[in-house]
Amino acid sequence: MRNRTYTADAEPGDTVTVAGWVHEVRDLGGIAFLILRDTSGKIQVKFEKDEMDDDLVETGLGVHRESVISVTGEVDEEPRAPTGVEVTPESLDVIAEAEAQLPLDPSGKVDAELSTRLDNRTLDLRKDEVKAIFEIRAEVQRAVRDKFRDLRATEINTPKIVATGTEGGTELFPITYFGQEAFMNQSPQLFKQLMVGSGLERVFEVGPIFRAEEHNTPRHLNEATSIDFESAFIDHTEAMDVCEAVVTAAYEAVEENCQDELEALGLEEEFERRPRVPAAHLRGGHRAHQRTGELDEQLVWGDDLPTEGEKALGEDVGEHYFITDWPSEIKPFYIKDHDDDETLSTGFDMMHPNMELVSGGQREHRFDHLVAGFEQQGLDPDAFEYYTKMFKYGMPPHAGFGLGGERLIMTMLGLENIREAVLFPRDRQRLSP
Amino acid sequence: MRNRTYTADAEPGDTVTVAGWVHEVRDLGGIAFLILRDTSGKIQVKFEKDEMDDDLVETGLGVHRESVISVTGEVDEEPRAPTGVEVTPESLDVIAEAEAQLPLDPSGKVDAELSTRLDNRTLDLRKDEVKAIFEIRAEVQRAVRDKFRDLRATEINTPKIVATGTEGGTELFPITYFGQEAFMNQSPQLFKQLMVGSGLERVFEVGPIFRAEEHNTPRHLNEATSIDFESAFIDHTEAMDVCEAVVTAAYEAVEENCQDELEALGLEEEFERRPRVPAAHLRGGHRAHQRTGELDEQLVWGDDLPTEGEKALGEDVGEHYFITDWPSEIKPFYIKDHDDDETLSTGFDMMHPNMELVSGGQREHRFDHLVAGFEQQGLDPDAFEYYTKMFKYGMPPHAGFGLGGERLIMTMLGLENIREAVLFPRDRQRLSP
Repeated sequence: MRNRTYTADAEPGDTVTVAGWVHEVRDLGGIAFLILRDTSGKIQVKFEKDEMDDDLVETGLGVHRESVISVTGEVDEEPRAPTGVEVTPESLDVIAEAEAQLPLDPSGKVDAELSTRLDNRTLDLRKDEVKAIFEIRAEVQRAVRDKFRDLRATEINTPKIVATGTEGGTELFPITYFGQEAFMNQSPQLFKQLMVGSGLERVFEVGPIFRAEEHNTPRHLNEATSIDFESAFIDHTEAMDVCEAVVTAAYEAVEENCQDELEALGLEEEFERRPRVPAAHLRGGHRAHQRTGELDEQLVWGDDLPTEGEKALGEDVGEHYFITDWPSEIKPFYIKDHDDDETLSTGFDMMHPNMELVSGGQREHRFDHLVAGFEQQGLDPDAFEYYTKMFKYGMPPHAGFGLGGERLIMTMLGLENIREAVLFPRDRQRLSP
Repeated sequence: MRNRTYTADAEPGDTVTVAGWVHEVRDLGGIAFLILRDTSGKIQVKFEKDEMDDDLVETGLGVHRESVISVTGEVDEEPRAPTGVEVTPESLDVIAEAEAQLPLDPSGKVDAELSTRLDNRTLDLRKDEVKAIFEIRAEVQRAVRDKFRDLRATEINTPKIVATGTEGGTELFPITYFGQEAFMNQSPQLFKQLMVGSGLERVFEVGPIFRAEEHNTPRHLNEATSIDFESAFIDHTEAMDVCEAVVTAAYEAVEENCQDELEALGLEEEFERRPRVPAAHLRGGHRAHQRTGELDEQLVWGDDLPTEGEKALGEDVGEHYFITDWPSEIKPFYIKDHDDDETLSTGFDMMHPNMELVSGGQREHRFDHLVAGFEQQGLDPDAFEYYTKMFKYGMPPHAGFGLGGERLIMTMLGLENIREAVLFPRDRQRLSP
């Protein structure tokens, strides 16, 4: 359809061919209106029954809702039309007739369960407020990539099929790989670290990760998108600065470039009022507990914060905050301890009142400490030799983080279930579509 | 290292701290030079033995090559230095000493087998000409994403864990997914098609694909990057236009933004002389055979072109060309036939003299034809119901293509083995690092 015009581009005086879905038909007797919807918006198609070819009127008004049609005709101003213009059809083609009964109502007038929506994502995504989530998701990916590039990082792609998991054998999906045992990678952690010792020095990746965790909650996915960053010659405080800059860039880009989408989600005002990351930024994790008064009783230093605690802390300090200085023993082998206190790690989390968004830290770059760390965690250093041996050939100090792509979208847009931020989510029960 | 200066940013008159790898040490007696390398370039560090602290001189000149050090000192102009400036160290720290014996020589003076290089990618990527490949790869991904967005497409992420493969049970890696059988996805084909029927209409994805094919050749990978595009309301000729635009954008971006990298690869002149896609663009696949004279004998219409034929045809018509109008019977069920000749498909390939880069076509959007196509290919339509049923609810005509990300880099840079375009390639033998 070389000469198709998007509905949003139809100007009064033009003769256009527009194509899309039949959103609604209103028959008022002598006159009738069909609302045609495409990705750019909607346009009114007018049928004046006495003045038009009977076949054309019959076809246009008889077609099922959600069928795909194209209409050729002249565009006129019409202040009473939803977008101020309307098309009077000279010809109309039914390109793909929809069944009369749909499993889901794309007009959104009839509510549907999330599972019905996910089973019928094609129809679900015809709703403005669902489409908006994925337009925003795409914009967030663009914004974070651009920000990483501004910060002189190079985009990389690390393998998703691996011989060993990042943290040993837990929570891995096994693959049969030409008769060998392999796994789907749960994190690009070890690979991105190998790259900071290369000539690239500073890298980022936006890609899928796979976790066989048993949780089946509104905030867990078994296949997710991880936004990873790692850089040579920075420490954990500089990694937190990059983390702030990237999350801030994502919020700013959405505010600047996604006003229509925010409006479709009813978020245009709320979004503007939200604190940006730097404004609500807090350092000094276990020390933060002492500031939160009523939380003290629930919190034991070094425990993962209970959900209630996360929420209360978030309300106390703002939309996003860092928790730092976790006890070394609960952090993985690749996180470096503080030089002046080996019981304290440089690991940090960036929190949202509802959940953890980011996990990062300075990394252990000293070969002997690294190998000792493997042994302390009961992992076999030999299985990770491809990784550890590079630490003998000049590995710089480095730090980085992993940011949960879907969690960022979920918290940004206030979604109730993380599955709403994924086109085709994967969980214990859901493997299709 | 908050105050670290990249070597390329060190200006005469500044006092800087630079950090990186010891590239080379030249001891001339009373004076000695250390070349320090970081991601931005190299800088000369000068040791005047009689005028400097003995410990500092001893440390600087005694450190193994490829160790990580930092140097603080004043920058001066020095026309004889490789970059026209040098640092006189006031202090020098050895941050991570490298072993004296390295498995690979990052200066590139000693050649290494590809398998040794891949086993030691961290060291391999300290060579300018290897690093250049991955800087270019990142730039290509940026350029194609930006071009797709210019063309009003939305970036999507489709699942990599699936219940059924795109083309049935062949060439799939099986996964154990919570006790169910699942697979790693071999193509986003069916998912991107589901999106053209949604409100998004036009989508692209840059992501991993997984193929359990037995080939172990210089141009096959078992995990690769696919650059996918799919759009409602276009036909196969318009999909070819988009394909051309995207490949052209990639070449242009590399020419414009990667001159240093092209130089590191020795390609700066050759690259400019190469024909761009439109200039070497040919349509009419089986008809093209007739134009190629000497090729006629090797070619049977409808067969995949033999490698020799691909090369000869490429030399005849230029760097890239399309082959169209393949016989319907050899194309998969989702490719639409020509309306005026059902024995001819709308499928197309974009070829490079050395290999196929792109496969695309107009898709079958009619439910009954689609289901018949499944049956003709011996596939069970019920296993794909999540896909086929959406064709009953208003599926527009659509077309698209998949472009092999690594093949694009390989042909663009004249690499001899596709593994050179992947940080950590996966093949039958290689699962680590």
